[in-house]
Amino acid sequence: MREYTTSIEVRFADLDLYGHVNGVAYFTFMETARVKLFSAPFRELTRQGVFLVVARAECSYAQPILPGDSVLVTISVSRIGGSSFELSYRLHDGAGKEYAVASTTMVCFDNTAKRPVPIPEQLSQLLHDEDSV
Amino acid sequence: MREYTTSIEVRFADLDLYGHVNGVAYFTFMETARVKLFSAPFRELTRQGVFLVVARAECSYAQPILPGDSVLVTISVSRIGGSSFELSYRLHDGAGKEYAVASTTMVCFDNTAKRPVPIPEQLSQLLHDEDSV
Amino acid sequence: MREYTTSIEVRFADLDLYGHVNGVAYFTFMETARVKLFSAPFRELTRQGVFLVVARAECSYAQPILPGDSVLVTISVSRIGGSSFELSYRLHDGAGKEYAVASTTMVCFDNTAKRPVPIPEQLSQLLHDEDSV
Amino acid sequence: MREYTTSIEVRFADLDLYGHVNGVAYFTFMETARVKLFSAPFRELTRQGVFLVVARAECSYAQPILPGDSVLVTISVSRIGGSSFELSYRLHDGAGKEYAVASTTMVCFDNTAKRPVPIPEQLSQLLHDEDSV
Repeated sequence: MREYTTSIEVRFADLDLYGHVNGVAYFTFMETARVKLFSAPFRELTRQGVFLVVARAECSYAQPILPGDSVLVTISVSRIGGSSFELSYRLHDGAGKEYAVASTTMVCFDNTAKRPVPIPEQLSQLLHDEDSV
Repeated sequence: MREYTTSIEVRFADLDLYGHVNGVAYFTFMETARVKLFSAPFRELTRQGVFLVVARAECSYAQPILPGDSVLVTISVSRIGGSSFELSYRLHDGAGKEYAVASTTMVCFDNTAKRPVPIPEQLSQLLHDEDSV
Repeated sequence: MREYTTSIEVRFADLDLYGHVNGVAYFTFMETARVKLFSAPFRELTRQGVFLVVARAECSYAQPILPGDSVLVTISVSRIGGSSFELSYRLHDGAGKEYAVASTTMVCFDNTAKRPVPIPEQLSQLLHDEDSV
Repeated sequence: MREYTTSIEVRFADLDLYGHVNGVAYFTFMETARVKLFSAPFRELTRQGVFLVVARAECSYAQPILPGDSVLVTISVSRIGGSSFELSYRLHDGAGKEYAVASTTMVCFDNTAKRPVPIPEQLSQLLHDEDSV
């Protein structure tokens, strides 16, 4: 399965009073990486009135992220269903240290009809195509 | 000048690695208080295509906010101009301890014409009227 | 199982460009509620060098939280293990509308020895005792 | 006066419901840039028990930051006093568009004695030296 990796710039404001990156910020890192990956198709889908909604999010923490640590997010498509798909995430330093593994279930949602719709052809191709992202 | 006071719920995520509320969060506290104060007229103005935009924000820090501290925000209207007005803020504990004093300059902005407009009559009355907020 | 419910003050800054509370903020709401629930024993444990670490977090989203919505977080202890326990969360409006259900796995971690330790007696009693929280 | 410029990665979570970067995030951008600039001397000062505290922060907004915009922060030292100094910031796109100008007053604070102290020699040299940062 094709993987996409992007780096995340950790901010001082991401640190909590333990001196670690707050666990909630990991979800912001995943969102930031996801928006980078899908920005072009997201914009096109939004124009069509189809939103990509997070239906479920999950993260297993392995090691704390400390000030000065490099943070990379690697995303892969781990499941493709009718109107939903699952993305898997690995937060790591690019040199063997893994901070967390995580996943989000994404649903294609027609914002006018207010209900899930089948994954549009264009996005489906993108999710299946190993080279197009 | 009439004052409006509201309490703010400090979150664990507002603390930084020094164990204090991060200075940036003070601006979020002011925004939260301001939105509470002006929610009704804001909604009405937005419907008319007029946005209240922050043109300038300023905060002088006096004492750190620690975990467990009560935080109140007291707002007053400190200046009313043609298309702008200034709000003054006091962040304190309600018992004599002052965390910060601050101000924001607000501009009435026509989002269609993309330029400042005179303060709408309705908002002007609200800003001058000591009892209507 | 005893439940603990607290309200969360939604901030303007929690909203994203869809006009909904951003999904990541739900985890901040859970953290805020959890810190309120466990503030006294947390402080005592921290003094003993034992940290309560989130090892896993998970949230299933049901309905968006919109500006003006009331948000309550109801927490219950759903599993107690040797050195870990699980908290379950319900985010709702207190009047039948459910925004999300979620859970976090908490681990007792000796910050000096850098390894998990059995749940301290004091916390264990609290988790089992239906009336002491 | 020597200037230091760094880029900031805008996150989806920085956007508010108007589709702009929220004004409060500008202060986070400045903090992020400042911590990058001063990370080495900050660490050394912290080791000596001297904290660099923000005593005052101020931002004048010129143009909104939209999704996809590049954001650079340019910092310069605009005033050096006995125990305090002022940093000036320009938030811009590196191609002539200016989002905001801002400043922060920084105070050297002895965290043990709980009072301001003269700017340590090492930091003073850094602030005056145009080439050492």
